[in-house]
Amino acid sequence: MTITVAIAGARGRMGTAAVTAISNAANMEVVAALDYKYDNHYLHNGEVTMEPNGIPIYTSLESLVADGKPDILLDLTDPNAVFNNTYQALTMGIRPVIGTSGLTKQQIETLSEMAAESRIGGIIAPNFSIGAVLAMKFSAMAARYLQDVEILEMHHDKKVDAPSGTAVKTAQMIQEVREAHKQGHPDEKEHWEGARGADFEGMKVHSIRLPGLLAHQEVLLGGEGELLSIRHDSFDRKSFMPGILMAINNVIERENLVYGLENILD
Amino acid sequence: MTITVAIAGARGRMGTAAVTAISNAANMEVVAALDYKYDNHYLHNGEVTMEPNGIPIYTSLESLVADGKPDILLDLTDPNAVFNNTYQALTMGIRPVIGTSGLTKQQIETLSEMAAESRIGGIIAPNFSIGAVLAMKFSAMAARYLQDVEILEMHHDKKVDAPSGTAVKTAQMIQEVREAHKQGHPDEKEHWEGARGADFEGMKVHSIRLPGLLAHQEVLLGGEGELLSIRHDSFDRKSFMPGILMAINNVIERENLVYGLENILD
Amino acid sequence: MTITVAIAGARGRMGTAAVTAISNAANMEVVAALDYKYDNHYLHNGEVTMEPNGIPIYTSLESLVADGKPDILLDLTDPNAVFNNTYQALTMGIRPVIGTSGLTKQQIETLSEMAAESRIGGIIAPNFSIGAVLAMKFSAMAARYLQDVEILEMHHDKKVDAPSGTAVKTAQMIQEVREAHKQGHPDEKEHWEGARGADFEGMKVHSIRLPGLLAHQEVLLGGEGELLSIRHDSFDRKSFMPGILMAINNVIERENLVYGLENILD
Amino acid sequence: MTITVAIAGARGRMGTAAVTAISNAANMEVVAALDYKYDNHYLHNGEVTMEPNGIPIYTSLESLVADGKPDILLDLTDPNAVFNNTYQALTMGIRPVIGTSGLTKQQIETLSEMAAESRIGGIIAPNFSIGAVLAMKFSAMAARYLQDVEILEMHHDKKVDAPSGTAVKTAQMIQEVREAHKQGHPDEKEHWEGARGADFEGMKVHSIRLPGLLAHQEVLLGGEGELLSIRHDSFDRKSFMPGILMAINNVIERENLVYGLENILD
Repeated sequence: MTITVAIAGARGRMGTAAVTAISNAANMEVVAALDYKYDNHYLHNGEVTMEPNGIPIYTSLESLVADGKPDILLDLTDPNAVFNNTYQALTMGIRPVIGTSGLTKQQIETLSEMAAESRIGGIIAPNFSIGAVLAMKFSAMAARYLQDVEILEMHHDKKVDAPSGTAVKTAQMIQEVREAHKQGHPDEKEHWEGARGADFEGMKVHSIRLPGLLAHQEVLLGGEGELLSIRHDSFDRKSFMPGILMAINNVIERENLVYGLENILD
Repeated sequence: MTITVAIAGARGRMGTAAVTAISNAANMEVVAALDYKYDNHYLHNGEVTMEPNGIPIYTSLESLVADGKPDILLDLTDPNAVFNNTYQALTMGIRPVIGTSGLTKQQIETLSEMAAESRIGGIIAPNFSIGAVLAMKFSAMAARYLQDVEILEMHHDKKVDAPSGTAVKTAQMIQEVREAHKQGHPDEKEHWEGARGADFEGMKVHSIRLPGLLAHQEVLLGGEGELLSIRHDSFDRKSFMPGILMAINNVIERENLVYGLENILD
Repeated sequence: MTITVAIAGARGRMGTAAVTAISNAANMEVVAALDYKYDNHYLHNGEVTMEPNGIPIYTSLESLVADGKPDILLDLTDPNAVFNNTYQALTMGIRPVIGTSGLTKQQIETLSEMAAESRIGGIIAPNFSIGAVLAMKFSAMAARYLQDVEILEMHHDKKVDAPSGTAVKTAQMIQEVREAHKQGHPDEKEHWEGARGADFEGMKVHSIRLPGLLAHQEVLLGGEGELLSIRHDSFDRKSFMPGILMAINNVIERENLVYGLENILD
Repeated sequence: MTITVAIAGARGRMGTAAVTAISNAANMEVVAALDYKYDNHYLHNGEVTMEPNGIPIYTSLESLVADGKPDILLDLTDPNAVFNNTYQALTMGIRPVIGTSGLTKQQIETLSEMAAESRIGGIIAPNFSIGAVLAMKFSAMAARYLQDVEILEMHHDKKVDAPSGTAVKTAQMIQEVREAHKQGHPDEKEHWEGARGADFEGMKVHSIRLPGLLAHQEVLLGGEGELLSIRHDSFDRKSFMPGILMAINNVIERENLVYGLENILD
């Protein structure tokens, strides 16, 4: 059986990579693109065309479904569009695979309840990189035993925000398993302000920004006489594709909506 | 309630550290030392003395138990002594906490059966470093998803064996969760022999030996566009103490014998 | 004064990046392309065109010079073409900036003598990445004092050769400053063949190949109680551009030909 | 010829290591200890004794010299004692080898002038670890070309001060070769205060403190598409011994006083 997939955001950089990855998967097919423009056009090798060749583009989910209901809606658009797309997909019995970190707790709850009632599988994942998700998961697992933690995140110098969203999320996941406590020497003196980094419940977070860097994170966990370091390097957005394929295969089997790729990794 | 602990190997370097760590634990007490000599002597601040001051030394478990049965036998001696000590401890209803990698599968099975029949808790652990054990566990968990793996282990240049026991154990744990396959380019050419390291089911293992180094291991797991690295640095044998204390607390509660500290970490 | 540059290999990936970088430099201009085909065509925004718009393409250096002698010939072609191009450039009084590792010692000597006689500046550089060249230079400087060295090089798994050219070059540079000697324990035992890596005069070289990796090298130098690590990560071929611009500015001033970018870095 | 060495601070931990290292050197001998107490005693295998066996202890340099003028005074005491000891040594024609970071610029100048006038060789070194000194030197050399720099220093959590003295010194050495400039995104936003670390002329400095850690520093230098990392790990105070021996051999040859081990490394 082939899993049929409609993609919202197929023209973007992530979407383009996803079209290729899904088309290359043995058991999947991209059957439609959902867009805010280019109705009645086609997406062919990454280009929009009028020729009836390639993936048909629709500007509404209704018209898309009218031509054939897909099994999956993969949504790679921005947070503004995502909620409505997902809501509609669930209403129509299409399983959503959503890549965004922008939904509110309230929105996630609403969608989860809808999915549970209709027994429709789905996933919302802020991060589809399996390596990044494992790194966060392992950091939280380890922090139960090695409770002194510092997070280093390193990015190119075009990044505006510090710390990174992944570092914040990692700190929050660790927060859930360890008690807040002051780290370092009790009488610590910061001769140069900021040297000890940002403080989150005693954990320290350090943001490095340099030209040349891509996206890297290292979590250091110290114990008596030992150090455990969990590092993830993200070199290319291709790293999100295996997680997307895994998510598509997973939601076909399940009857509820999960938040976070970590919940479908054992 | 105080947990009473007898220690075999209390005069060694690891044993000396264990005496201190257990004595400092709020709920534990070192009540006796089991040794192959110094019967009727005492261990006081790391020195053997005739004065009746400190920890009494016994050369047989019978005479030790005659003066008061301890809850736990912590055995830090060599593989030759360990099996008999543990066997005897189980016979007498003392819970064994054993630090060795030298027992055979057959010996471990025999002891496990004894413990199960008598419902006595116990643990045999080749490595009591929580960080090292977590690093191995995480590596095996990750290798299910990121199946191309290389192991780097780095030690001081006084180490004779390559690869290290920990690297071998790590490779074996990964072997259980991933299918063997050739890594690297299919037509790979090794212009300098050995450059690509040792091969274990396709995994590559590299042993670095340099003056200055202590004991370090890094497992690299590569995926499309990303890298996950799990590193453990062991700086001091004090790193084994938290694992020993955790094991003592754990075996008091359980009614069987487990092999490997990873099995009492969630 | 503007430095005029002709480029051989301008249509390649490195050449395309070089055209952009040189065009953006305040004191430089790309005036011509030397190619084995497309005579009388033009290179315009990376595309070959018949329109007289962009950089004129020539298939011989004579015809190129006939239309105006450039100050510099930047040659980014393969080793086969490079020697003749450089020889001719020197004959015509054009300063060569050559990016290749493929010339023989004999060829380099011939070109150096020509340049010295005519007092023409030039450079042949196997690697234009300033970071990579500094990393090699520092490794060799440090190996005079910390004489136990292991080289780790890490590349994507599409690379056929092990070790990498950079690792070989690094080992050779270190060879010149330290005496060969056996490293590690004198009675070292390799239980898994290849674990200790390739041996080059006692130095060990380890080649890691994983999907996801780009191009990385780490030189570890161990001493009593300490470790010095010099690492270079190459994420993008843009990293070669600053070195090319530096080389162009440098050869304008000099009256001989040097081999290796390290010789124009202080 | 044997170089005769008197040691101030011979009973301390560093001094004890130095006595061993110098005694083991083929061309050196420890002939006396300078101390603030234990006059007429002897230092024998690290213990103070009345027996005339081992290294004689003196409480004044005059009485020490009266029994035989040493070639070298190695001073490993605190900054308070060091200036007077060195001043006196120079007056008496003894070559000083001084390990402290506590002297003022004025004091260093005074001693340098004295040494220059009398043509006596000497060295004052805040750090005798060859690896650490090379790491600082290389960082400064590289920062001329890769001008965006972040310094990470990592220490055990018993350290009170942040950043470390070595990090401050490294930043100052880099300051001398690069122009101050703002790094990172011009509109950078620190959502968690301190995340971007301490700022020193645009360079960022991050101090990590964790149990388990010893003393580590990593300097990251970023350029277009590349990263150069220079890391030093200090595992044991034995790492200072090769630098002390090198300094002793060097000052015998020279006729002036230098500040910093880097000045006797090529």
